[in-house]
Amino acid sequence: MINMSILRHVNILCSLRCFSSSGPQILRTGDILRQSRIFSSEDIIDYSKVSHDSNPLHFDAEVARNSGFEDRPVHGMLVAALFPRIIASRFPGAIYVSQSLQFKWPVNVGDEVVGEVQAVNIRETKKKYLVKFLTKCFKSGELLVIDGEAVAILPSLALG
Amino acid sequence: MINMSILRHVNILCSLRCFSSSGPQILRTGDILRQSRIFSSEDIIDYSKVSHDSNPLHFDAEVARNSGFEDRPVHGMLVAALFPRIIASRFPGAIYVSQSLQFKWPVNVGDEVVGEVQAVNIRETKKKYLVKFLTKCFKSGELLVIDGEAVAILPSLALG
Repeated sequence: MINMSILRHVNILCSLRCFSSSGPQILRTGDILRQSRIFSSEDIIDYSKVSHDSNPLHFDAEVARNSGFEDRPVHGMLVAALFPRIIASRFPGAIYVSQSLQFKWPVNVGDEVVGEVQAVNIRETKKKYLVKFLTKCFKSGELLVIDGEAVAILPSLALG
Repeated sequence: MINMSILRHVNILCSLRCFSSSGPQILRTGDILRQSRIFSSEDIIDYSKVSHDSNPLHFDAEVARNSGFEDRPVHGMLVAALFPRIIASRFPGAIYVSQSLQFKWPVNVGDEVVGEVQAVNIRETKKKYLVKFLTKCFKSGELLVIDGEAVAILPSLALG
């Protein structure tokens, strides 16, 4: 029996670059930040309540199968919420400017997904930083389930 | 004292086209579907719990003001969840393919926002329908707060 409370715990994974422990860690172009998550049936219910999105695809296995899914998928917008979460957790006070999302594969309850954001452009403007990120979410290792880009205004490039 | 339970109630507004009461109502290019919503402080807390996005911008009025906001904004991705909600509520079983989002203005607790999706391209494929929507969210009447596009696969063009 798998302990779902442990599985649901958020793992904060390492970024590609090895940050030293001395001095503040500063975001640079090319840096990747990752976090993983496993969604539960309760997450689907809780998200449905707050979003008011009660698409039967997420609750009725027969509707899901008739739509070509193996099982009830997690709401795509909930999975995509990984991206602003990763950014905000490292840069508290970050302001989201834009996000594009291509939903390529479904995410099911129990799948471990890894969201990653890669800084590809950093521009200083009025003592803040406009940063463009490639945003990707994977499951089963290398299966790309969501692809896209985001732009956020960061109050600082120091990683929190 | 305003009854928030009433304010939070989802209003389903009319589409531009006047559908007749005889026979099924079928989505056509140009049709607009709208729903309104007023977000509460509880919505911010509930969304933060399920998304794990605890950006202090949404909880700390001082952080919000220091970031140039008048008040704590609602998570943009929660406001944007209006779009798949509108589509799924009229086309149960709809599958989201893509979504682009430009966050232009903040939405605060108590603001009445109106989300609208306009079908701009409808293509039949394998007995389903690939539909491109313009997705917009307004507050205070005509202030565009989120702009973007979505593509969804609908099991039918009949409006539920």
